[in-house]
Amino acid sequence: MTAVTDQPMTPAALRSAELERQIAVDPGRFRILTGDRPTGALHLGHYFGTLHNRVRLQDLGAEVFVLIADYQVLTDRDVAERLGEYVEGLLLDYLAIGVDPARTTVFNHSAVPALNQLLLPFLSLVSVAELGRNPTVKDEIAHSRQAAVSGLMYTYPVHQAADILFCKGNLVPVGQDQLPHLEITRTVARRFNERYGPVFPEPDALLSAAPLLLGTDGTKMSKSRGNSVALGASEDETARLIKGATTDADRHITYEPATRPGVAGLVLLAALCLDRDPHAVAEEIGDGGAAALKRTVTDAVNAKMAPIRARRAEYAQDMGQVRDILRAGNERANAVAEATLTEVREAMGMFR
Amino acid sequence: MTAVTDQPMTPAALRSAELERQIAVDPGRFRILTGDRPTGALHLGHYFGTLHNRVRLQDLGAEVFVLIADYQVLTDRDVAERLGEYVEGLLLDYLAIGVDPARTTVFNHSAVPALNQLLLPFLSLVSVAELGRNPTVKDEIAHSRQAAVSGLMYTYPVHQAADILFCKGNLVPVGQDQLPHLEITRTVARRFNERYGPVFPEPDALLSAAPLLLGTDGTKMSKSRGNSVALGASEDETARLIKGATTDADRHITYEPATRPGVAGLVLLAALCLDRDPHAVAEEIGDGGAAALKRTVTDAVNAKMAPIRARRAEYAQDMGQVRDILRAGNERANAVAEATLTEVREAMGMFR
Repeated sequence: MTAVTDQPMTPAALRSAELERQIAVDPGRFRILTGDRPTGALHLGHYFGTLHNRVRLQDLGAEVFVLIADYQVLTDRDVAERLGEYVEGLLLDYLAIGVDPARTTVFNHSAVPALNQLLLPFLSLVSVAELGRNPTVKDEIAHSRQAAVSGLMYTYPVHQAADILFCKGNLVPVGQDQLPHLEITRTVARRFNERYGPVFPEPDALLSAAPLLLGTDGTKMSKSRGNSVALGASEDETARLIKGATTDADRHITYEPATRPGVAGLVLLAALCLDRDPHAVAEEIGDGGAAALKRTVTDAVNAKMAPIRARRAEYAQDMGQVRDILRAGNERANAVAEATLTEVREAMGMFR
Repeated sequence: MTAVTDQPMTPAALRSAELERQIAVDPGRFRILTGDRPTGALHLGHYFGTLHNRVRLQDLGAEVFVLIADYQVLTDRDVAERLGEYVEGLLLDYLAIGVDPARTTVFNHSAVPALNQLLLPFLSLVSVAELGRNPTVKDEIAHSRQAAVSGLMYTYPVHQAADILFCKGNLVPVGQDQLPHLEITRTVARRFNERYGPVFPEPDALLSAAPLLLGTDGTKMSKSRGNSVALGASEDETARLIKGATTDADRHITYEPATRPGVAGLVLLAALCLDRDPHAVAEEIGDGGAAALKRTVTDAVNAKMAPIRARRAEYAQDMGQVRDILRAGNERANAVAEATLTEVREAMGMFR
């Protein structure tokens, strides 16, 4: 990854660098939980932001659980439209980028009742004041599509604690904005252990150096805004979407994210696909203008995505097999969740 | 039951009277959910308030589910102390009063993951504002033993909706103060059905004409305050507790709840045990004073409880069998919950 920042490292970033060193030495002691909400097709922003990193961690030898967070679709919309279609799309995307179901457990949380039951003891460990203070929830509430904030939205950091702790995940790759969420998971784990005995790890955050890719309209890439190249898009769709991207009137191409966000976003995308430095990519295009830039980006994206799209198309020919992969993942997640729930109920002195 | 009130009937009371007529005609179409939190021994207040009514409904031929709400112990206290002991005590009490495990399903909700999973879709149907407005939650928060209100306390009417709707319960015996709770369950059922298709009944409240029995100290009977006669108490313990009850200096015994609450409470307790009118009981004691009143009460309670206590002692000799009864109830509750959850996930379009 070539995106470079010169900012001083935060404590969380320093800790993440140390964790990366540990993963390289002893990957087997890490159990990683990551996932997505099935609200649309995954796109290049997801790929360079998180998906690529999951496969990297899997290939290093860490144990990875990938959650399809189907209940969490309802936190900010009323109806789970096209849910089945989106779940299948996510599965194809995962398999296409190299998630290996033999090593990585893919599951959807609505299929794992023992995971969801953990929400109840965990809710007893968190105060309403703490739920209301969570900045990410506040932000998501501000952007919600619902008239009123639902109880599901309000409690979702606690549900996320269940998602992470059901498998005793000890490492969670996150962006900077998700640190407060993970802090709630850590708090839940710590309080449970203090009150009932040591059951859960306090999971660490693994901050990714994810570059911020903007959509073709200059706003944040969004699954539902049509401003991003889906992993499963065709070469033609890719070309069309990039052709329509917002640039500016200056024919000389440079990489200046602060002053030329549209152009810089395209340069960065090409650089990521080519695994090159964005300044070098810009320099090479020079006075070619937006047209040359867009050709470079389109070619780079289509070349980078070609093997991924080929694998995706291959898997898509046998959706029965794809669904069986999720079924097997759910079976494994259920076994893990039931074992954890049994421990939890024993620690709490519940009737066995 | 002999407690008589001359107040005009509320709509809820009128509806309950109509429901009683329907239960007498066609009991098989009612599925009733009731239950208790395992926070201490059940006492005479519970017996005359709710327990007796459950057995009556069971014996009329309605299908009854009795929930031991073990997670809800944590809504207003931090640790589930002596939980196993209290659960076993509840089981003995139920069996002693005539709950028949062949006809009635006794279960504890922490053993039924599919029931608890319903909390998630249900939370999406209720707003945070609605949760905060619930008067019973407000009241329970005011009496809570915790420094801060937990997320579990805040969401508990929604968990209660899961407790009732997992078995498609259509009738819930409640006191006046629990009507707002049941209203949340009805709202959840209605909204789910509107959004995803008809899955749940909107359960009716069956208001019981439960008499308000005060504790021996003149305050509300409480499992943990030592001011009430436990169902499992011995004859001597009963005598001792009633002997210490608060009365007044007037030797002439009357039944005047408003002005002589202590004396009236004892008269009412004797009347309930003897199945007589409290005024007649008071008149019979006449000028006998508190001592005669207390003898009457003690004899009446011990006579009424004798067969119940005998059955309780008999069951207590084989706790293995008692625990097996709960295990069998949990198995049945799990089968019912899993069938409902499957319907719910299908209605919502979740991956199967």
